[in-house]
Amino acid sequence: MNQERILLSHGSGGKLGYQLIHEIFLKAFYNEFLSPLNDQAIFNLPTSRLAFTTDSYVVNPIFFPGGDIGKLSVCGTVNDLAVGGAEPLYLSASFIIEEGILIEELRMIVDSMAQTANHAKVKIITGDTKVVERGKGDKLFINTSGIGIVKDGIHLSPLLIKPGDAILVSGHLGDHGIAIMCHREGIQMETPVQSDCAALHELVQDVISRSNGIRAMRDPTRGGLATTLNELAASSGYGMIIKEEDIPVKEEVKGACEILGFDPLYLANEGKLIAIVSKDSAGTVLEVMRKNPLGRDASLIGTVVDEPRGKVLLETSIGNRRILDMLSGEQLPRIC
Amino acid sequence: MNQERILLSHGSGGKLGYQLIHEIFLKAFYNEFLSPLNDQAIFNLPTSRLAFTTDSYVVNPIFFPGGDIGKLSVCGTVNDLAVGGAEPLYLSASFIIEEGILIEELRMIVDSMAQTANHAKVKIITGDTKVVERGKGDKLFINTSGIGIVKDGIHLSPLLIKPGDAILVSGHLGDHGIAIMCHREGIQMETPVQSDCAALHELVQDVISRSNGIRAMRDPTRGGLATTLNELAASSGYGMIIKEEDIPVKEEVKGACEILGFDPLYLANEGKLIAIVSKDSAGTVLEVMRKNPLGRDASLIGTVVDEPRGKVLLETSIGNRRILDMLSGEQLPRIC
Repeated sequence: MNQERILLSHGSGGKLGYQLIHEIFLKAFYNEFLSPLNDQAIFNLPTSRLAFTTDSYVVNPIFFPGGDIGKLSVCGTVNDLAVGGAEPLYLSASFIIEEGILIEELRMIVDSMAQTANHAKVKIITGDTKVVERGKGDKLFINTSGIGIVKDGIHLSPLLIKPGDAILVSGHLGDHGIAIMCHREGIQMETPVQSDCAALHELVQDVISRSNGIRAMRDPTRGGLATTLNELAASSGYGMIIKEEDIPVKEEVKGACEILGFDPLYLANEGKLIAIVSKDSAGTVLEVMRKNPLGRDASLIGTVVDEPRGKVLLETSIGNRRILDMLSGEQLPRIC
Repeated sequence: MNQERILLSHGSGGKLGYQLIHEIFLKAFYNEFLSPLNDQAIFNLPTSRLAFTTDSYVVNPIFFPGGDIGKLSVCGTVNDLAVGGAEPLYLSASFIIEEGILIEELRMIVDSMAQTANHAKVKIITGDTKVVERGKGDKLFINTSGIGIVKDGIHLSPLLIKPGDAILVSGHLGDHGIAIMCHREGIQMETPVQSDCAALHELVQDVISRSNGIRAMRDPTRGGLATTLNELAASSGYGMIIKEEDIPVKEEVKGACEILGFDPLYLANEGKLIAIVSKDSAGTVLEVMRKNPLGRDASLIGTVVDEPRGKVLLETSIGNRRILDMLSGEQLPRIC
């Protein structure tokens, strides 16, 4: 690339765009499906049951402790496939770039995507690039869509949730939210919190392959644990009770939450799994989770109950119960 | 919706986001795959050869003569599947909304997407919504990704192109570019030009089902006919000669180009097809195209030649030949 910064012409579909695609994107993502650079990628799949997902990433800042928008955009979409019980296979990557971003920053993010995709064993097989004028975007937005295979016999759905089921979480909550917030606001902590941004497909695979008792899984991103459990409760038609003292939250995250006025149960996570499993399989699933580095701090945090239907109750450490509602209003914009 | 405008909280993953998704998106796009509102859609496909594509749409303005960003986002992705020989089936839709956009405008665009998807017989089965602060986006960006089936026996590729092949275009060029430009700049024309924004899958299907001589197809969007032919020439390794007088361009588009200093061969189209076909099948394909309203003005515009390799030559009406290069620099930013 002869330029240092992205120009509007990089989005024109002409020579500079051609150069950008070849020297940055194709170089990082190279594979046999992407390399013809057709307007679509064509591939064969050995099965007919597929999962399809999409997410746009607008996180601010685009580099943060524990990750960047590129890593996030691959992990997030891999996770949305994985929690549906699918094996993630192919991703698309579409970039909306603000004119003037340093090409070196773009390259770092694209390389981070390539590395994350490689690690997660997914291929980026089709893509798109648009450039908008200065002040009409914010450095970089990335959309990734993903396709995965759902193997025979795997069926996960909130509709399978039953009273008595156990509610598990794979580790500490709120790391991503606090990492972004502190970095954004320039808050220095004694023990800095890193984003938990990670691809969960292997953890999910471990769990699915060892237990038939999985009802539904989710990754509690925007809106956090509280919002995700509310969605699951609403879809299942049953209630949930979770115990505050069993919910893993790091001391430094608790501290930051107290100072900043946040509730860790509403903070976004980018590498955590919530699993609703049959009572009988809870022990096995916890054990399996804890053997995987990404599930080391897994915990049983609650139970599905008949009443109150569609609601989530939080039992505090002194035994009080209160309704834990969905996130209302805005806690932290542009967290993912 | 109780609000008139989109707030940051609509992107928080909480209550307002829930309301937005249910009252605007799910209402417009309703289908059995989308309605569980899981993080991914799961579906069965009766075949194993698939096409996958993605595009982000940043067109400015979001409403223009002949369409809007919603219609464009469905047509564009349907077309990228169709020109690969795929039958478009499923789309994702991801919205990056600038805080403050009127909910009524969003609803109109979403309804336009639903109507276009319906017409093109594709289903929007998964989605995502993000909201960015005022001044960090520009009203609305939409990403659509798409999945289609490629039937057995269909194989299109620039690598199949051979010297002697005919170069066809399905109709008048430059309408989309001029429509956007005139609307953006407030230019009033005697005969206003409408965008040609349209879904081409039926036209493609007509052509494929009637002829075995199709080598490759493209929709000449950003960068126009000139850039698309250059890409095909480069991929095939052969040259192309096109005749200026055979290239269909409306008089009013020619006029606008003269005033504004544009070349219609570089202007974006959103409802046109370029087909490279064997010499023998050119007549049949033209006839088939002309029977479809979207191909009524189809024309044979040139021939694939041995030399100059990878280049496109334009033969002017007085018989001169000049190299028609890729678009260099920026003609019209944010055209799609």
